[in-house]
Amino acid sequence: MDTPVEDRTATQDAARIGDLITPALLLDRERLDRNIRRLASRARDLGVTLRPHVKTAKSVDVVRRLFPDGPGPITVSTLAEAEYFAGHGYRDMIYAVGLSPASALRAMQIGRRSGADIRLLLDTVEQADALAGIRSATGMAGSVLIELDCDDHRGGLKPDDPRLIEVAERVVASGWTLAGVLAHAGESYALNTPEALERAAENERQATVHAAERLRSHGHACPIVSIGSTPTAHFARSLEGVTELRAGVYMFFDLVQHGVGVCAIDDLAISVLATVIGTKPEKGWVLVDAGWMALSRDRGTASQPVDQGYGLVCDAAGRVFEDVIVAQASQEHGILTVRPGSQRKLPDLNVGDRVRILPNHACAMAAQHEVYNVVAGTRPDIEARWPRIRGW
Amino acid sequence: MDTPVEDRTATQDAARIGDLITPALLLDRERLDRNIRRLASRARDLGVTLRPHVKTAKSVDVVRRLFPDGPGPITVSTLAEAEYFAGHGYRDMIYAVGLSPASALRAMQIGRRSGADIRLLLDTVEQADALAGIRSATGMAGSVLIELDCDDHRGGLKPDDPRLIEVAERVVASGWTLAGVLAHAGESYALNTPEALERAAENERQATVHAAERLRSHGHACPIVSIGSTPTAHFARSLEGVTELRAGVYMFFDLVQHGVGVCAIDDLAISVLATVIGTKPEKGWVLVDAGWMALSRDRGTASQPVDQGYGLVCDAAGRVFEDVIVAQASQEHGILTVRPGSQRKLPDLNVGDRVRILPNHACAMAAQHEVYNVVAGTRPDIEARWPRIRGW
Repeated sequence: MDTPVEDRTATQDAARIGDLITPALLLDRERLDRNIRRLASRARDLGVTLRPHVKTAKSVDVVRRLFPDGPGPITVSTLAEAEYFAGHGYRDMIYAVGLSPASALRAMQIGRRSGADIRLLLDTVEQADALAGIRSATGMAGSVLIELDCDDHRGGLKPDDPRLIEVAERVVASGWTLAGVLAHAGESYALNTPEALERAAENERQATVHAAERLRSHGHACPIVSIGSTPTAHFARSLEGVTELRAGVYMFFDLVQHGVGVCAIDDLAISVLATVIGTKPEKGWVLVDAGWMALSRDRGTASQPVDQGYGLVCDAAGRVFEDVIVAQASQEHGILTVRPGSQRKLPDLNVGDRVRILPNHACAMAAQHEVYNVVAGTRPDIEARWPRIRGW
Repeated sequence: MDTPVEDRTATQDAARIGDLITPALLLDRERLDRNIRRLASRARDLGVTLRPHVKTAKSVDVVRRLFPDGPGPITVSTLAEAEYFAGHGYRDMIYAVGLSPASALRAMQIGRRSGADIRLLLDTVEQADALAGIRSATGMAGSVLIELDCDDHRGGLKPDDPRLIEVAERVVASGWTLAGVLAHAGESYALNTPEALERAAENERQATVHAAERLRSHGHACPIVSIGSTPTAHFARSLEGVTELRAGVYMFFDLVQHGVGVCAIDDLAISVLATVIGTKPEKGWVLVDAGWMALSRDRGTASQPVDQGYGLVCDAAGRVFEDVIVAQASQEHGILTVRPGSQRKLPDLNVGDRVRILPNHACAMAAQHEVYNVVAGTRPDIEARWPRIRGW
C-alpha cells in the first residue's frame, strides 16, 4: 500500500490546520470572544472595573479583543509584560507580584520611558523602606497597593493585621502614593460547588473591603479595592465596596476551571494540535508528537474528582473523544489511552492522523508556545497568527 | 531605615550575577565540563560512540564543549533542533521520535538543504509504507532505525516481535536504508540502586543486540546498535555488541538523577537565580520571584524517597541550604520552606536577597528560559550568555 504524500510541506505559516507543523497551539477565536463577553457583562452588572490579568494570554492581539475602544487597565505578572504592553499603549497597570528593590526601580524606569503608570504590590515594612531608598537615590516615586491575604494562599497581610496600618504609614513616609489594597482568592481553585465558590467570593470581598475601611479610618483614601481570581470572579453575587476585578485564565478557560465548575468543556479556547506517530493496540495506546514540552507538565486535575492526565483529547476539528486522555507524557511524546474505569474504546487513530489536546492549565500550556494559530469552531482555516511573549 | 539603592539597574546583559534581572537561568561551566568528561570517558572505556542527546541543552555553545574537534554525532528530539544544529555544521543525527509522513518529508527537506543526514525512527509497517510514498512522490529516501521496546516504557517493538522483520523488509522495499536499531531504557528513571541500574543497562543492551542479531540473520546489516538513557549510560558494565550510546540530561544533571543515584548534588550544573519578594515568618515561608514559569511544573522527585518540591534552594553563590525547598509554586511565585520533618531552620533571608534553585528536571527547567548565564563555581561573574532554541 502506498500512502499518498501531499505536495505541500508542513509549515509554521500554514493557511490550514492540516498543513501546520505539529505540535502547534490553536486558539478558537469564537470561544475566546464568548468568554471575554461573559466576564465583561458580569463586571458591568456588578458595577466594577474589569482589570484583566494578561499573564495567561501574553499577547496584545488577544488583549485588544478585551478593549475594542483602546487600551484599558490591565494586571501583569512580569515586568517583561509591563514593558511589552506599555509599548502597545497600555498605561494603567498593576504588577501583581511583590516588589523587590530591583524590580521596583526597574518598574519606575519602564514607567518613565513609556509613560505607563505601573502600580506595585507590597506587604512588608522592609519593602516600603526600599521605596524610600529609590526615591532618595533617583527622585522617582510611584504608587503601590498593599497585598492582602484572604485565604492563606500565598502572600499578603490579614485584613486585621496591625502591620497593615504600619506599612501604609511607611509607604506615605517614603514619599510614594498608597493607591489601595489587593487580594487574590487563590484557594478558590480547590473548590467545586457553587455554594463554596460564592462563599469564597464573598470572603474575598469582605476581607478586602474591611482592610480598605481600616486604612480609611487611619486617613488613607484607598481609592482602589481590587479582588479577583477566575472562580470567584464568576461566582461573586455582590461586589459592594470593591472597585475592580482581576482575572486571567477566563479568556481561554481550561480543564482545571472545568473541574472547579466555572466553564463547560466547549468553552475551552486553546488546544495543542498533535500528530499520531505510533500505535500499540496491544496496550491500548496511541502515541502522539505532543509531550510535556508542548502540553506543559501541569497536572492540575490530578487533585480533582476527574483526573484528565496531561489533557483531554479531541479530533482534528475539536470534537471531544469522550474519556480519551493523554495518560503519560515525556518530553516530545504523549501516550493517549482511554481513562481508567471507562468502558469506551480508543478511537481509530492511525499514524499521520491529527488530534487536539485540551489543557489542564491554559497559562502553562500557552507558555510552551511562541504563537497562537487562530481558528474558529470546526473550520480548518487559520485566520491569523498571534505572537506571544515570554521571559522576565 | 533607608535601604541603599544601587546605582545600576538589573539587566539581562549583566556582567555579574547580582545585577541580573530575576528569575534567570544560570549554568555552571565547571560542572558542565566535568559531567561531559565523565560520560565521554565511560564511552571510551566501553568502546562505543557517544551520540549525545541535545534536547536538554538546545544550545550549540553547550554542545560544542562535547566536541572540541568539531561537530560529532548527535540525537535530536525535534526537527527544529535538527535544522538549528545542521546550520551549525552538525551532519550526523538521529531524530529519536517516531516519524509521521509529514515529519519524515520535512526531515528529508532539511537534510537536502543543509547536507545533514537525519536518520528517522519507526516501529510500524504503516510508517515504512509512508516512506515509500515520500520516495515515489519526491524521489528522496534516507535511512531509518527501528525503535525497540526493552522495558514497556513507551514506543518500540519487543526484540522478539515478528513485526521487527516485517518492518525491516518494508523499509527496504520502500527504497530506504535500514541503518539499525535503537532502544531507550526510560524505566531506569524509576530505579535507585546500583544493582537495579546495572540490570536495567544490561537488559537494554541484551534486548538491542538480540534484535540486531535477528535482523542480521534475515540479511539486514544493521550497522547501528544504539542504546541510552542517562541512568543506564552511567551504570552499564559492558556494552558488547552496542555501537553507540545516547544520553542528554547528564550534561546538567538534576535532582531526579540525584534521587536515582547517578550524580551528587554538587554535579548539578543549572539553577534558577531568584530574588526574595516577601517573608511570612509566622508560617515559616519565604516568597521568591521564581514560580513554575521559571522552574517548570516538573515534580519528578515527588515519586522518589526524597521529595524536593519544586527544587532545592542554595544561597546566591550556589551553596545548598540543607532541607530548604520550594514547597509551592504558582506562575511567578515560589514559597520556600524547610522540608517537612526536618529540624533545621529557615535561613535568614530578607526582601531583595538572592537564592539559586536547583531543578527537579533539567530539561524542563532549561526549556523555560531563552539563555544560559554562564558562571563558574561560586564566582559572581557572568562569563558568557549562551542562547537556546525552542519550538518545533
